[in-house]
Amino acid sequence: MKDKNLELMKLEKYQSVMEKEMDALRVEKLSLEQMAVSYYLCLPQSLRVSSGSRLLISNSGCSWDNHKKRIHHLVCASARQPEKDLCLEPKVQTLLDNVKWDDKGLVVAIAQNVDTGAILMQGFANRDAVVTAISSRKATFYSRSRSMLWTKGETSNNFINIHDIFFDCDRDSLIYLGKPDGPACHTGSETCYYTSVFDLKEHQQVEGNELALTTLYSLESTILQRKSEVEAEQNGNPSWTKRLLLDNHLLCSKIREEADELCRTLEEDEDKSRTASEMADVLYHAMVLLALKDVKMEDVMQVLRLRFSKSEEEPWLSDQMNSVQ
Amino acid sequence: MKDKNLELMKLEKYQSVMEKEMDALRVEKLSLEQMAVSYYLCLPQSLRVSSGSRLLISNSGCSWDNHKKRIHHLVCASARQPEKDLCLEPKVQTLLDNVKWDDKGLVVAIAQNVDTGAILMQGFANRDAVVTAISSRKATFYSRSRSMLWTKGETSNNFINIHDIFFDCDRDSLIYLGKPDGPACHTGSETCYYTSVFDLKEHQQVEGNELALTTLYSLESTILQRKSEVEAEQNGNPSWTKRLLLDNHLLCSKIREEADELCRTLEEDEDKSRTASEMADVLYHAMVLLALKDVKMEDVMQVLRLRFSKSEEEPWLSDQMNSVQ
Repeated sequence: MKDKNLELMKLEKYQSVMEKEMDALRVEKLSLEQMAVSYYLCLPQSLRVSSGSRLLISNSGCSWDNHKKRIHHLVCASARQPEKDLCLEPKVQTLLDNVKWDDKGLVVAIAQNVDTGAILMQGFANRDAVVTAISSRKATFYSRSRSMLWTKGETSNNFINIHDIFFDCDRDSLIYLGKPDGPACHTGSETCYYTSVFDLKEHQQVEGNELALTTLYSLESTILQRKSEVEAEQNGNPSWTKRLLLDNHLLCSKIREEADELCRTLEEDEDKSRTASEMADVLYHAMVLLALKDVKMEDVMQVLRLRFSKSEEEPWLSDQMNSVQ
Repeated sequence: MKDKNLELMKLEKYQSVMEKEMDALRVEKLSLEQMAVSYYLCLPQSLRVSSGSRLLISNSGCSWDNHKKRIHHLVCASARQPEKDLCLEPKVQTLLDNVKWDDKGLVVAIAQNVDTGAILMQGFANRDAVVTAISSRKATFYSRSRSMLWTKGETSNNFINIHDIFFDCDRDSLIYLGKPDGPACHTGSETCYYTSVFDLKEHQQVEGNELALTTLYSLESTILQRKSEVEAEQNGNPSWTKRLLLDNHLLCSKIREEADELCRTLEEDEDKSRTASEMADVLYHAMVLLALKDVKMEDVMQVLRLRFSKSEEEPWLSDQMNSVQ
């Protein structure tokens, strides 16, 4: 997909070449529209196929040898308004018809980590990009500089696997809510947003030190920093977090104590602020344990997501009925 | 700020009027640049000032009667490249100098809830909007339709109070990471992103039923739905969540049990996946308790944020040293 030949090629120009190649391969003859559909349906495979292997177009029942030229033609085919040919549900079609594409046919597209809420990156999407994202379930953008579709991860393999797509009230902005396969930024950073204005303002530090983290993940980051300090040195007056990190017995007794205190806010009908405060205590102390076990909060979120999406009607039922009965 | 007279007024056009008014009020004469600065420094006040009260420009030592015309002129003044006059730290100036403003002088600006990670809304910001946001700590955008700055909340009072601003690696996109005073969407919805493509695809429901929620808040939403079902009806075969909601004794015994099991993954050196799974159990059961107590996870996050930002070096120290010693 990095090949310059791929840029801005017109389907019409290659139509006869493609038909000849299909004849030569003796595959069932496909219309250009069918090929466009096939391209979308096999997107991840077509992009990941390695030299010497075969590109399988699973939904049309034919396969191609992996000669660069042939793959290129398939990619070209995708330029032909494929959304009209995909079996989009009528309501989704209507939604897309009502999107306020700007004068370049674009909307802002924000990729967000479904588990942590981190904003991974932001690009733009045209209608084809959104349709591709819906069918391939990979965050797909329109590159304004290269004037072509690009699926995040097509070169790095760090795809963003879409769980849902949300449009805003004005229909000129969308969220790709998904799970990234790896760092979203080309710099290797987890997200593209690591330059804090207030960090520059207040600490005059070199930029790039801090990710845009929300509260839970910011606390996790602080705990992990304490852990690395504990591992690097010992000093006479450690912080509370460091004391917990150094003393499993103290940590576990605090977790059990805080869980008990949380329960007592219900049992003894204490006020709401007390419940919030005790829950914060439970979370913080449990997160120190996670740090010791090298478990990320994101891993916990993934467990939660897989568990309650499997049994949305009855979360925990299958798991818990055995343990309590 | 909704007054049409405010739109697109040029500072130069009103310069003589403003000077006359200042003479009439016998206030110290201010340069236009000083007035622009004053406007920025008093932004929240100037926008909130009610009819009949006085608008105090605290940083220039003068006050204005609250006649609409005069307030308007102050707003006009803000159009004159005020960022040059604000005492921005050199590194922030440099950062802003290196931002890739598009051909209209804009970057994409995304407002995100610092506690929940929810993407609240998306607009565009020019340099003035970013400078205003830095000084006022309110998420500020440039309205392309009205060709003017606008601070989210200036009409609704639902400001987004900025904790930090992050630029992306390409310097053409930013996040206003902040705490909203109320619903971010003009429809009254918590965020602008409530139209799910996959909801339309799979359930063919009427759009607008589902917010773009990340894992923790999606689970919270499911638990709250179970709670409303429990309150509305009783049926013979309740889900596990419903059973917990109906039985405080069962719920509290589960919370204590899960906290104990989490501790045992450390004490008995169990594997990481076990720790993640037990932490998910602790979180889920504790969240059922939060639902019973009408405490939102966002409230808990706020407690965490206030606590560890107050004592970033020593989180929990002041709180916990007493309870364990």
